[in-house]
Amino acid sequence: MTDDQAPAPPRRGFAQPEFEERTARAQRLMAAQELDALLLTTEPHVRYFSGFQTQFWVSPTRPWFLVVPREGRPIAVIPEIGAAGMKETWVEDVRTWAAPRPEDDGVSLLAATLREQASRFGRIGVTLGHETHLRMPAGDFRRLVERLRPLEIADSSAILRRLRNVKSAAEIAKIRYVCQVTSMAFETLPAQARLGDSEREVCRKLRLDLLGRGADDSPYLIAASGPGGYDNIIMGPTDRVLSRGDVLIIDTGTTYDGYFCDFDRNFAFGPPAEEARRAYAVVYRATQAGLEAARPGATTSELWSTMWAILEAGGALSESVGRLGHGLGMQLTEAPSHRPGDDTPLQPGMVITLEPGMEFAPGKLMVHEENVVITEAGAELLTRRAPPELPVIA
Amino acid sequence: MTDDQAPAPPRRGFAQPEFEERTARAQRLMAAQELDALLLTTEPHVRYFSGFQTQFWVSPTRPWFLVVPREGRPIAVIPEIGAAGMKETWVEDVRTWAAPRPEDDGVSLLAATLREQASRFGRIGVTLGHETHLRMPAGDFRRLVERLRPLEIADSSAILRRLRNVKSAAEIAKIRYVCQVTSMAFETLPAQARLGDSEREVCRKLRLDLLGRGADDSPYLIAASGPGGYDNIIMGPTDRVLSRGDVLIIDTGTTYDGYFCDFDRNFAFGPPAEEARRAYAVVYRATQAGLEAARPGATTSELWSTMWAILEAGGALSESVGRLGHGLGMQLTEAPSHRPGDDTPLQPGMVITLEPGMEFAPGKLMVHEENVVITEAGAELLTRRAPPELPVIA
Repeated sequence: MTDDQAPAPPRRGFAQPEFEERTARAQRLMAAQELDALLLTTEPHVRYFSGFQTQFWVSPTRPWFLVVPREGRPIAVIPEIGAAGMKETWVEDVRTWAAPRPEDDGVSLLAATLREQASRFGRIGVTLGHETHLRMPAGDFRRLVERLRPLEIADSSAILRRLRNVKSAAEIAKIRYVCQVTSMAFETLPAQARLGDSEREVCRKLRLDLLGRGADDSPYLIAASGPGGYDNIIMGPTDRVLSRGDVLIIDTGTTYDGYFCDFDRNFAFGPPAEEARRAYAVVYRATQAGLEAARPGATTSELWSTMWAILEAGGALSESVGRLGHGLGMQLTEAPSHRPGDDTPLQPGMVITLEPGMEFAPGKLMVHEENVVITEAGAELLTRRAPPELPVIA
Repeated sequence: MTDDQAPAPPRRGFAQPEFEERTARAQRLMAAQELDALLLTTEPHVRYFSGFQTQFWVSPTRPWFLVVPREGRPIAVIPEIGAAGMKETWVEDVRTWAAPRPEDDGVSLLAATLREQASRFGRIGVTLGHETHLRMPAGDFRRLVERLRPLEIADSSAILRRLRNVKSAAEIAKIRYVCQVTSMAFETLPAQARLGDSEREVCRKLRLDLLGRGADDSPYLIAASGPGGYDNIIMGPTDRVLSRGDVLIIDTGTTYDGYFCDFDRNFAFGPPAEEARRAYAVVYRATQAGLEAARPGATTSELWSTMWAILEAGGALSESVGRLGHGLGMQLTEAPSHRPGDDTPLQPGMVITLEPGMEFAPGKLMVHEENVVITEAGAELLTRRAPPELPVIA
């Protein structure tokens, strides 16, 4: 039926020009905002500019810093434990301290590094805005700001968002690959899952299948189910046993080489209730309308209106997720958000989810999701389209 | 040879008295520090007091807040998307907003909630210290502090550290289970890995085996290798192919029900060089000395001295990791650190790693790790002890 041949995995990592280009783009935006340097503290931001890829961020003990100067390559200010790894990247200036050292966990070294850069504008860019946080102790950030006086701290979130919103061809290839692998695993699931399995068992089968097909990991793999519908899309999997009349959603952020897919699939156990079948058709049509509307120049709020009109006409009681899709890439969810007021114009190279969902009966949700890349010609699916009718596991 | 029967998995979740006890202990420490409320923003802290367990924290878009008041149950201030899940926990007061809403992403709702609590001392505890960060936009935190004026913000890190340092019997059971499952998988690895495999292939085999044995996930599973030794312990796995003379380390933070193990194992490919074999023996002895020294009343700095004396006598050029072990539990690494100056006295119920490691030749490391729980009688292994001689994959 479906083509079950796994696509060839794209080359890991990026060639150096990719990092040169990212840095040059950042530096142009920094100049426009009169910033001498960007201070970066989180995994995706450090990786974006350096290529430094490690799972060690799971450990909360040590802070890691990357400084993007006005000119030249990024400078790493990191714990000694990461020196060997960082020296394998294109970053040449790697400054380390013997972390953990609570009495001065990199603060003085970082302050000195930032001071060196701040000769022109006297302004350092720090991500202070929406969808960001500072991955360092808040007390240390306060001490850093004091040490940097009279340098000014300015919000750099818009720069980071603008850079990361548009993906390169190499980034898109990684996302496409993991979308394809995950689509195939979802398509095979009805042959693997059965009545009497728990949510947890079904998810374990899917997780094993994804690894077997070439995915690296599934940091996000949730399930929710209930008779005729589910009441949430972020909890689970639980030990709830699936029986006739249940509707199950599985949503996954599975990764390849540090890039995510993010989409879900719905399954009925035994013949679905008419209400659930109809809700599925409504969100399927809303996704279709989103696919047609997602063209360069359209805004995220227009995309929301297009999909919401169909959900509303289809009997939606509420929306309940807060938006109908979002960006994705190095993170499961990224800016922008398809919601009223976001108003981000779509551009070629953006990778987004289309995620129309609704409460179709009190406490019962139906949510669809596909991943697309925006091209000059419109939205191109990265996932393999969900089946037009609710798949049944008998 | 080894008992390969998987132990029975402990019951998931916790009974309500566990959360009552955690909250009551926090409230006693809050009273001593004259705090009206604790504000919590990170996954482990929110989960610790509420039992709210979701993978959705992988999405950076929305902040989540939990407030521990002076008296009574915690109060959740969370995005609407999490309401159904939070209402399944023992938390009764669940306040939501339609996130994402960048113009006011929970800040006004949170400020109002904290104000209500601050009638006695006028002080709110926020984690500002080492090994913590605030998982909310730094700009929003600034706005929150302004809205709360003249309430005082005080550092609550020590309270959280003190609470979480000592684990309950139910927590220890989860860590023991995942340590046992992971030990078995490591013991089976020599039969699965072979010369000519890449680091990545070996890790994939281990990951699949761990899932098959009952682990939930392996958010941390790294590998490093090289002829006669490896030069780091936090990068990889890479596509490097393992050949005769290589030494491979695999380190994993594998989870069960939200609790981590964190330990490594070393493997030689073909007969190991004498230098590597000797280094292995030295760190093995250092671990043994750590096991004997890790008793109630001993401090983390004494533990460091005991292990370091053996490493130094055994020819260590440097230590390079910054400490010789640490706490673990809901996170891969937790306080305390076995390092000079930490000086935390060990207490029954603490779960720690013993992780002696050294650079035994320029650019070559050897690191061992075991996980133990401190009991009145001394350290009790949660892992199954590594073999006394470097295991060889032929």
